[in-house]
Amino acid sequence: MSINIPATIGMSIEDIDTPCLLLDLDAFERNVAKMGKFVKENGLRHRGHAKCHKSADIAAYLMEKGGTCGVCCQKVSEAEAMVSGGCRDVLVSNEVVSPRMIERLAALAKRARVVVCVDDLGNVDDLSSAAQKYGVTIECLVEIDVGAGRCGVAPGEPAVEIALKISRAAGLKFAGLQSYQGKAQHVADYAERKAMIETAIADTARTIGLLKAEGLECDIVAGAGTGTYQLEGTSRVYNELQCGSYMFMDADYQRVRDEHGEFLNEFENSLFVYTSVMSKTKADKAICDAGLKAQSVDSGMPVIFGRTDVKYIKCSDEHGVIEDPGNVLKLNEKLKLISSHCDPTVNVYDWYVCVRNGRVEALWPVTARGMNL
Amino acid sequence: MSINIPATIGMSIEDIDTPCLLLDLDAFERNVAKMGKFVKENGLRHRGHAKCHKSADIAAYLMEKGGTCGVCCQKVSEAEAMVSGGCRDVLVSNEVVSPRMIERLAALAKRARVVVCVDDLGNVDDLSSAAQKYGVTIECLVEIDVGAGRCGVAPGEPAVEIALKISRAAGLKFAGLQSYQGKAQHVADYAERKAMIETAIADTARTIGLLKAEGLECDIVAGAGTGTYQLEGTSRVYNELQCGSYMFMDADYQRVRDEHGEFLNEFENSLFVYTSVMSKTKADKAICDAGLKAQSVDSGMPVIFGRTDVKYIKCSDEHGVIEDPGNVLKLNEKLKLISSHCDPTVNVYDWYVCVRNGRVEALWPVTARGMNL
Repeated sequence: MSINIPATIGMSIEDIDTPCLLLDLDAFERNVAKMGKFVKENGLRHRGHAKCHKSADIAAYLMEKGGTCGVCCQKVSEAEAMVSGGCRDVLVSNEVVSPRMIERLAALAKRARVVVCVDDLGNVDDLSSAAQKYGVTIECLVEIDVGAGRCGVAPGEPAVEIALKISRAAGLKFAGLQSYQGKAQHVADYAERKAMIETAIADTARTIGLLKAEGLECDIVAGAGTGTYQLEGTSRVYNELQCGSYMFMDADYQRVRDEHGEFLNEFENSLFVYTSVMSKTKADKAICDAGLKAQSVDSGMPVIFGRTDVKYIKCSDEHGVIEDPGNVLKLNEKLKLISSHCDPTVNVYDWYVCVRNGRVEALWPVTARGMNL
Repeated sequence: MSINIPATIGMSIEDIDTPCLLLDLDAFERNVAKMGKFVKENGLRHRGHAKCHKSADIAAYLMEKGGTCGVCCQKVSEAEAMVSGGCRDVLVSNEVVSPRMIERLAALAKRARVVVCVDDLGNVDDLSSAAQKYGVTIECLVEIDVGAGRCGVAPGEPAVEIALKISRAAGLKFAGLQSYQGKAQHVADYAERKAMIETAIADTARTIGLLKAEGLECDIVAGAGTGTYQLEGTSRVYNELQCGSYMFMDADYQRVRDEHGEFLNEFENSLFVYTSVMSKTKADKAICDAGLKAQSVDSGMPVIFGRTDVKYIKCSDEHGVIEDPGNVLKLNEKLKLISSHCDPTVNVYDWYVCVRNGRVEALWPVTARGMNL
């Protein structure tokens, strides 16, 4: 890994090796401040999602300057990396069901506050056994499926049944609900997106009511992403947000519209795949050095930042094909790509090259890169 | 990275942590032997492509048992990793144009035979300067575009012009042609695929003739991938193959048909993304732990190996959704996924978990993972 560092501190942005992950620190810091302000004004807690950035440096910055109360992770190994990086309050916003991973989760709870999601009655027994073995308390959120069609039990009684079992299990603490509508985040139309979240809010409120009737209070009612946080965040039902992409923004989120039909623009692009033209043998196209291994294209091709005269149209493993109708691109010319989906794109890199005023200011390791267990 | 090792040697396949990259050693070794036999029978050289496996262990195995003469790489940093892993004959089957990477390439030529592709006259000067600076010889192939529409100059005179310049440049040696028809590899229809390669062969032969007329011999005439190697390999024009996927096979290559309209079946699936059911709250679906960060879906969703009763239909960052109409899957049940595209899938993992007879026999690091410079 060490030989593959694409830059050195102080280097001009023009000299950075490509492809690499470029972070515009000014834009990043403005995004973080903006979300921090929203969270504070609405009396919320916020756990910036480490599934997005996978960086202990970023997690620490968010807690110092971005008003976050801890981190969200999707995987136990990701959580371990964040705890090793200094974080002491981790929510694994996902189910952990394999025996070896439950053991690792319980061991981690010796070193940090650990919260995990549950959607299975048998899993409660397994978590309880591991917590007792390590002499720790694992806090549990019942995950309810509020429309994403992924993990989680149905809102209402099924959630109450699991919550009751958790509340009676040794080594566990019932801590609330995980209620994330992942499917709504990238719905471009505002009314459609709003309706999906209103359903999620109603399902969540109803479940909270049923839990209360059983004497169970929800310390944490968690959910929301960059596409919908204003809805959950002003609902008075959710009290803890889990946004990630807002700090970077990606091309797909920028296709999402607000209530006036305008593109969402409260956050700026701060993260780019930096690429160079590596072949220019055709008048009407250029080949760049960022292909499938430099980014995920699951949500479409990347968009070239700040350029309307050239267009990234397709890619193969190590190459991107750029339409260049005016034949303006030159060999070794550098371009900034806005990835269509930042999370899996970050996951292929070892380093953030952090830049300000045209110079490299910091190199941050992608601490939890590939931590998928 | 160390804490994220998904298995230990000797472990039962049932106990491996998921998601991970599983290599069936028996199937892998049969694939390697089969290609080795073809190469030998046809009097060819073969450079197994490290862009596919990114593993020094696999590169070494191919040279010992698979009849390969060295490795192909796509990136300088990948080549460095292979040389550090013991390989002393490396072809970078790609252009290297940035000043810092040219310097690294020249430095690498102190330690190994280095061959690189060229498609630009100015690049010849830059490579020559660096080779002289380090007192090395860099061998150069002129890359011709035989239909892929990516890098490479047009066959014929443009290639000859560059070859002549290389042959006169200090520190460089003209070594032949890179003539890879990447676009043909995954064309499912045999006749269409064959026609594309026949064009590539004719273009290549014509260029070789023009070079010969200038007194330039091609030591290396390189190209071919898993989808077309039999065509180039029996052409008597190409003398060096560059196949990679044959050792693993992926779902997309298995959609390719032979001349009888049958699916290509000379190679077996040896590489899998091993995954577990992590949530089973719905009767007709299951959620598994391998999503976008566990594989590339650029060529479609993965196929579940050996199962027709369940189907992987979509995914998000850390989750895969599996249709389970018979409600047969259980929590923690393990499945083998055939990735739609093995190269970018391998690139997100740190380890191959190598299994035989139901047990873990070896753990091989993905040496050049993320080496994209």
